[in-house]
Amino acid sequence: MIDRLTEILGPGHVLTGAEAEPYGWDWNHEHFEAPLAVVRPGTTEEVSAVMKLAHETGTPVIPLGGRTGLAGGGQGEGALVVSLERMNRIREIRPGARSAVVEAGVVIARLHEAVEEQGMIFPLTFGARGSAMIGGALATNAGGSNVLRYGNTRDLVLGIEAVLADGTVVDLMQDLHKNNSGYDLRHLLIGSEGTLAVITGAVLRLRPQPRAYATAMVGMAALPPALDLLNRLQEATGGAVEAFEYMPASYVDDYARLRPGTRAPFEARHEVNILLEIGALSPRDCVAGEDGVLPVAAYLEEVLGRMLEDGEIDDAVIAASEAQRREMWALREAASEVASMRPDQIIMDVAVPVDRVAEFLSRADEMLEGLAPGSATSVVAHLGDGNIHYTIFPTLPKSEKDRVVEAIEDIVADLRGAFSAEHGVGTHKLNTMARRKDPGALAAMRAIKAALDPKGILNPGKLLPEASGAVAK
Amino acid sequence: MIDRLTEILGPGHVLTGAEAEPYGWDWNHEHFEAPLAVVRPGTTEEVSAVMKLAHETGTPVIPLGGRTGLAGGGQGEGALVVSLERMNRIREIRPGARSAVVEAGVVIARLHEAVEEQGMIFPLTFGARGSAMIGGALATNAGGSNVLRYGNTRDLVLGIEAVLADGTVVDLMQDLHKNNSGYDLRHLLIGSEGTLAVITGAVLRLRPQPRAYATAMVGMAALPPALDLLNRLQEATGGAVEAFEYMPASYVDDYARLRPGTRAPFEARHEVNILLEIGALSPRDCVAGEDGVLPVAAYLEEVLGRMLEDGEIDDAVIAASEAQRREMWALREAASEVASMRPDQIIMDVAVPVDRVAEFLSRADEMLEGLAPGSATSVVAHLGDGNIHYTIFPTLPKSEKDRVVEAIEDIVADLRGAFSAEHGVGTHKLNTMARRKDPGALAAMRAIKAALDPKGILNPGKLLPEASGAVAK
Repeated sequence: MIDRLTEILGPGHVLTGAEAEPYGWDWNHEHFEAPLAVVRPGTTEEVSAVMKLAHETGTPVIPLGGRTGLAGGGQGEGALVVSLERMNRIREIRPGARSAVVEAGVVIARLHEAVEEQGMIFPLTFGARGSAMIGGALATNAGGSNVLRYGNTRDLVLGIEAVLADGTVVDLMQDLHKNNSGYDLRHLLIGSEGTLAVITGAVLRLRPQPRAYATAMVGMAALPPALDLLNRLQEATGGAVEAFEYMPASYVDDYARLRPGTRAPFEARHEVNILLEIGALSPRDCVAGEDGVLPVAAYLEEVLGRMLEDGEIDDAVIAASEAQRREMWALREAASEVASMRPDQIIMDVAVPVDRVAEFLSRADEMLEGLAPGSATSVVAHLGDGNIHYTIFPTLPKSEKDRVVEAIEDIVADLRGAFSAEHGVGTHKLNTMARRKDPGALAAMRAIKAALDPKGILNPGKLLPEASGAVAK
Repeated sequence: MIDRLTEILGPGHVLTGAEAEPYGWDWNHEHFEAPLAVVRPGTTEEVSAVMKLAHETGTPVIPLGGRTGLAGGGQGEGALVVSLERMNRIREIRPGARSAVVEAGVVIARLHEAVEEQGMIFPLTFGARGSAMIGGALATNAGGSNVLRYGNTRDLVLGIEAVLADGTVVDLMQDLHKNNSGYDLRHLLIGSEGTLAVITGAVLRLRPQPRAYATAMVGMAALPPALDLLNRLQEATGGAVEAFEYMPASYVDDYARLRPGTRAPFEARHEVNILLEIGALSPRDCVAGEDGVLPVAAYLEEVLGRMLEDGEIDDAVIAASEAQRREMWALREAASEVASMRPDQIIMDVAVPVDRVAEFLSRADEMLEGLAPGSATSVVAHLGDGNIHYTIFPTLPKSEKDRVVEAIEDIVADLRGAFSAEHGVGTHKLNTMARRKDPGALAAMRAIKAALDPKGILNPGKLLPEASGAVAK
């Protein structure tokens, strides 16, 4: 096997032993699974040749990008790791068409820099952008902090190139906004977590660069007026709200303990704290307020002032400087540190309809009080997406933690939500996938997997739980 | 078969003979294929029971909505037609979440009315909206006249419910903006033209209602400055351009012949005529112009005035009244009448990258001059989408028309475009699909079709051409 791989790729690009070892670790360096070998193809043709060989020999293959996934989707004992790191060319940036043609191994932060030089942005962004690669972002349909405005990864992809399990190349590298010529394989492969194909390239949408931000913190007693505020701002700005983030009082308390001496967002303690940001395309960008035409920050002040008078909100601060804006964001961005302040957390990444976030939170808190009284929680939510990161520190013994997970899943199911909003399934949520995914959808997914990867060599054991009993088809 | 269908649905909802006949005609009433029978299920469970029976008996099934398709996708001699017309409930309109939950048989115009009463819009719109149903729009991923702002049908769908070939119900009726829990079956089924499932319901995105429009006609000598104008307007308005439509001089000439006495858009004749429209969320909505903050219509006047001074455009008129706006649109909306002024047309519905429309047009004109000198054309294009409706009246004999079609397809392929932008494949473009679709993509589509519909009963003979020789998998 190693000899045949070396024949395809040359000796420098087939790694084994100590050279391969770093590829066996997960992002947190907590979990290791030794790969059979690591190959680093430089072209789509080489990926295709590697897949043909793997298909012929029945060798399990793990496609790998920047290894920043959080769902345990990038490891496998004895599997052949196909690292896309050498396929890192930005082939073209097209300002007129507002698009970029890239290979799968391009690191997201590098693409950001390249397109910003031309006055545009590639909107997808999240903490791991300095390591994460385009191919991995597509494979996991990555989310991040501005989905409200720009959508998930799949909404930013116009074209795709990928290699199927048997080495067949699917070339849909098109820069098109309308294309009704058969099944949309692009969307099928995006989010398939490496189980249907190795993604090798993409045509991506670019957007104009916002030139100014209006940022505010809002304090209120309860969540319901927040959605009304969001909808009003969206209408007045034509959908320019980039962030609308919820943090409860307990989160702000924890942050004060984490960073003693930091200024609190408000003098008083508010049950609900909202960080919101509008991205304006020009510093003089404006919207229509009740008193006529106003720049966006002044408009924000007017709306918040009126809601304050009407008693709909209790407090509001608009960032008067970039430093104050950074301070507001520091509070929100400490989420993972805040969640790590206590041991034994259960991290739930769920989504519900945007008008049911308040209901989810009150039912989750109530359930917890019944099942594990005294449990602390650490909660932040992308309110505009309905995406809630609900971290629990249960007072239950370790062996009974699953009861809490299932109880949260019950609430999510009852609200017709998603048990995985942005992190994906990987290996971590296989059990949940088995018990919660619509059975008809699961049967269809298994049939598709068997059709496109009959030997089951692509990222085996990820995303799709083993069928218990007969497959429906 | 009829007895068993009657058992499932009751006698009033299984139509045969003269009652079934109207369902055998296409939209233009030009082509007839007699169905075996027509069933009108009232619930998803009934659709499932019908499909189980069809699967068991190997009966071909054609899912049918408003029968307004243009690609020959809704007919089949001896097939069982499953009409969704009775599943026409708007189950819920949710203003806070900006979404609607509907059944597949809801007529698009009826949904428009229902959501407009609540100050929102369901953006999808096209000529046949008074008959076309949601299920058909999803099955064909319908486009229309405002894709530039709101996207294609698939961009407006949050959740879906469908019945697979064997009767399995896939329930993904979720109102979610983030959901990474397995393969995206929603996008796979949207645009699959009834060959993978019967779509029975959807959760749709709604948008705020624009309250004012700024509409203009622009005349220029060549296309390239048009894309620059579009990009500038998009940036200044945060993407509020709803229409950006191209019509060449010859189209305006034809229109003058079609409607003698109508006022021409300009006194002079311009090679390039652009109809553009910006939808403002408030009548006082504004953007930042060079002279400060301006309402959107005044801004448009400023930009166009400056381009006129700089010689980038030759003429411009902004609609000063709703009547004048209607007049501008009347020119564009006469496209199908203009195309019908001459006999023997070849209608091409293609898409290319937005920055290559000019190149496509000049290459197509040049090709035609070589292959069929003196041929007339009737061209309109959604410039912002790269979607060109290029209608040819070739001087060639009927038997040689295919040479023109293939020559256009060559140019589209060379520009990495799509041979079907919004009309779909159906039966009309099966040959094109066979010779032009990426072979890897075609192999994957065939594998998926075989996996989800092993007996090939769902809308047989549509979308996927017969494999010549062995299937790749």
